[in-house]
Amino acid sequence: MRHYDAVVIGTGPAGQKAAIQAAKLGKSVAIIEKGSVLGGAQVNTGTVPSKALREAAMHLTGAGKRGLFGESYRVKKTITIRDLVSVSQQVIRNEWEVIREQLDRNGVDLLWGKAHFEGPNLVQIVGPDHAEMVTGDVFVLCVGTRPATPDHVPFNDNNILTSDSFLQVDRLPRSLIVVGGGVIGTEYACIMATLGVKVTLVEGRPKLLGFIDSEISEALQFYMRREGVTLRLGEKVDRIYEIPEEERQNTNGSGGPQVVAQLESGKTLKAECLLYAIGRQGVCGDLGLDNVGVAYDDRERLSVNERYQTSVPHVYAAGDVIGFPSLASTSMEQGRRAMCHALGTEIENWNTELFPYGIYGVPEISMVGKTEEQLTDEGIPYEAGIASYKEIARGQLLGDEFGMLKVLIHQENHTILGVHAIGSGATEIIHIGQAVMAHGGKAEYFINNVFNFPTLAEAYKVAAYNGLNKLAHV
Amino acid sequence: MRHYDAVVIGTGPAGQKAAIQAAKLGKSVAIIEKGSVLGGAQVNTGTVPSKALREAAMHLTGAGKRGLFGESYRVKKTITIRDLVSVSQQVIRNEWEVIREQLDRNGVDLLWGKAHFEGPNLVQIVGPDHAEMVTGDVFVLCVGTRPATPDHVPFNDNNILTSDSFLQVDRLPRSLIVVGGGVIGTEYACIMATLGVKVTLVEGRPKLLGFIDSEISEALQFYMRREGVTLRLGEKVDRIYEIPEEERQNTNGSGGPQVVAQLESGKTLKAECLLYAIGRQGVCGDLGLDNVGVAYDDRERLSVNERYQTSVPHVYAAGDVIGFPSLASTSMEQGRRAMCHALGTEIENWNTELFPYGIYGVPEISMVGKTEEQLTDEGIPYEAGIASYKEIARGQLLGDEFGMLKVLIHQENHTILGVHAIGSGATEIIHIGQAVMAHGGKAEYFINNVFNFPTLAEAYKVAAYNGLNKLAHV
Repeated sequence: MRHYDAVVIGTGPAGQKAAIQAAKLGKSVAIIEKGSVLGGAQVNTGTVPSKALREAAMHLTGAGKRGLFGESYRVKKTITIRDLVSVSQQVIRNEWEVIREQLDRNGVDLLWGKAHFEGPNLVQIVGPDHAEMVTGDVFVLCVGTRPATPDHVPFNDNNILTSDSFLQVDRLPRSLIVVGGGVIGTEYACIMATLGVKVTLVEGRPKLLGFIDSEISEALQFYMRREGVTLRLGEKVDRIYEIPEEERQNTNGSGGPQVVAQLESGKTLKAECLLYAIGRQGVCGDLGLDNVGVAYDDRERLSVNERYQTSVPHVYAAGDVIGFPSLASTSMEQGRRAMCHALGTEIENWNTELFPYGIYGVPEISMVGKTEEQLTDEGIPYEAGIASYKEIARGQLLGDEFGMLKVLIHQENHTILGVHAIGSGATEIIHIGQAVMAHGGKAEYFINNVFNFPTLAEAYKVAAYNGLNKLAHV
Repeated sequence: MRHYDAVVIGTGPAGQKAAIQAAKLGKSVAIIEKGSVLGGAQVNTGTVPSKALREAAMHLTGAGKRGLFGESYRVKKTITIRDLVSVSQQVIRNEWEVIREQLDRNGVDLLWGKAHFEGPNLVQIVGPDHAEMVTGDVFVLCVGTRPATPDHVPFNDNNILTSDSFLQVDRLPRSLIVVGGGVIGTEYACIMATLGVKVTLVEGRPKLLGFIDSEISEALQFYMRREGVTLRLGEKVDRIYEIPEEERQNTNGSGGPQVVAQLESGKTLKAECLLYAIGRQGVCGDLGLDNVGVAYDDRERLSVNERYQTSVPHVYAAGDVIGFPSLASTSMEQGRRAMCHALGTEIENWNTELFPYGIYGVPEISMVGKTEEQLTDEGIPYEAGIASYKEIARGQLLGDEFGMLKVLIHQENHTILGVHAIGSGATEIIHIGQAVMAHGGKAEYFINNVFNFPTLAEAYKVAAYNGLNKLAHV
């Protein structure tokens, strides 16, 4: 029976980084994967495929270039699923190789099979053609989540779909109902609208993406409506059902409504497909956690302390299984930090306040630090400096008419309290503000700095001028 | 006769920012423009048109996406000049409005006409339909440059061209000789090659873009050659002449060679067009500088001290007219700093070492701080951390197979000494490293930071790991 200093369960972003961190600290480490491929939801069903789909959609339709080339501009008139999927498959295969190579290079043992705890330090791994037992000193559980599939929704693999099964559909529906305005629902609604699908999005709260700055979510909602998305905010779905074949309109094959979503308000929505994107469900039930003494909640998710430690000290958890924000980026760092702490290595800066959020809608959104609402609630005096992409040359060159960058500046000491961006490159340029925040920099940095011309990064200078000008008149 | 606290000559980037700075300090200020439009070379003949051309070329040909969509992928089969110019014109018109609006909003007086000093504080402005005299306490000369046109090159407006006249040509040549491998020559060579033009570039030095890091320029050269560009490095042009009409091959109209460049090494190059891109020439000769006592060199350019002050204390100069680096980004900041000093306001940080350089070739290049060569010359011990875009998911999603980011890390204190990038988004993401450098941050920042996934910014983490791993084995 093999013994490891550390055992990681799951090869998604949290698991990968946890395992590699252990190896870098000179420890023996195994990583267990129950699927047939590496990378978990990030690579195979979630982040990467949806971003590849988005990238292909953006490029092939010329979205975001219409400001320059005219509203009717479209690179490729007929988008086939093949166009979209081919991009995704290639990127996914490459990711498998990159992960495999990183694990190998760092000397991480990769064990294929389902993990089941037989004791606090003993795990059985049942693989496709053999089983083995391993022991470990510490464990990091990075088992991820799957889409929630509540009983009252009659999922099938054809027209009532989760975000997993949605990616398997071999056509582009003409119309789509998206239930849920969180990250997943919003991203797919945007991508599908970009591809010309008639989208209706239903969200129970009064705005999309509850955690982001209201000015940004309003801008997103404005843009989405302009692209033809119908937003049903503050509305709940009462009942979802398939229209019986015989009652469907004759539309010569496909394209007509096949699904109904009945809203509590009495409205009836019909579309060819429905994507149900509310909630994700942990997958802890099969791990034998009773044998370790680790409890999970009714959605099979784990609670951890600020060191990513479960109620049992030698068992840690990271990634989607511990809940919000469930982003690949933060999961990676959670996995790494969990492992560092598990192995007794302290990381200098445990600050999680500078974790950025990136939402790959159309347009892209990103934020770091506090929102205006948070600062107001906390009574921190701030001024907002705003730059519109249309004021900067790069925004014009990209044809991005709606992008904006907002920098929240402390009224007294001019430190940066938050940065919020919507538009091209938002997820990239947010890191400039993040670096300044992490080092305690002030708005004056952006004024005195030279930015390449023409870049979107110049928006920081424009925003800083805007904010400091307002402050000069307080 | 009007009197101003400050008078600025030229409405390019240096002039604009100088004038606005004076206004922001509460001073009366005039800006003088001799052309018929605002913005100088940046907006009208240089930076913006070439970047618009590049943007259109990149998008319409699908360059940079070929890793994903296959080598034969091309969005639009036939590129017309109309496609390319229409983008440029729209952006230029918008820039005019933005500049005009900024000058108006800040209360800057815009005076149209040619400026001529009649005394140290007295300037005559001869406009299209009137002349006037104004006096000023301080002057900032931002008169720019034009392409040098040495006598031995028989320029015409058809096939032997400067970078100004090149943009006016109403066709896409089949073949092009570019003389000069500086920023302008390299950018146009890349753009034209992207558009399928057969390009030969002749440069007297052994590498392109002498001031950038050698590893980056070698990567650029590799990429350009792969795209079909012939590089003649370390070669000088002896003679340039047009092939007489009657000796041209019959090619049914256009497309055949029309121009010859005879190299000193004996090689003969032929092409449909030649772009001569060596040197830019100041335009100080007509300013009446003798009446002020300011001297200019034989290329009509001005020397300034580190405060952008000429030999006459109340006369400053900024932008292309003072020479390297002649980039819009740095010119803006020079103009602003010159004016601050002229009006007795000190800027906290006069550090020019963190000015970034952006070169909009295909691929894009950017740098900040020192090159490996500089650090070696100065005896500063460093290690290079390198990330290849193909290792990061965003690089794959973009289909960028060649991009890379290099972070130069001080061997002892792990501060960042320089950042060098080639590939998609290079000019944007360089500002992340720049912000860390400006605040004295270390390589460990990139390790501990969370970056959005998938972004190019993640390359900083990969590069920092790479560099620190190497250092751990020193």
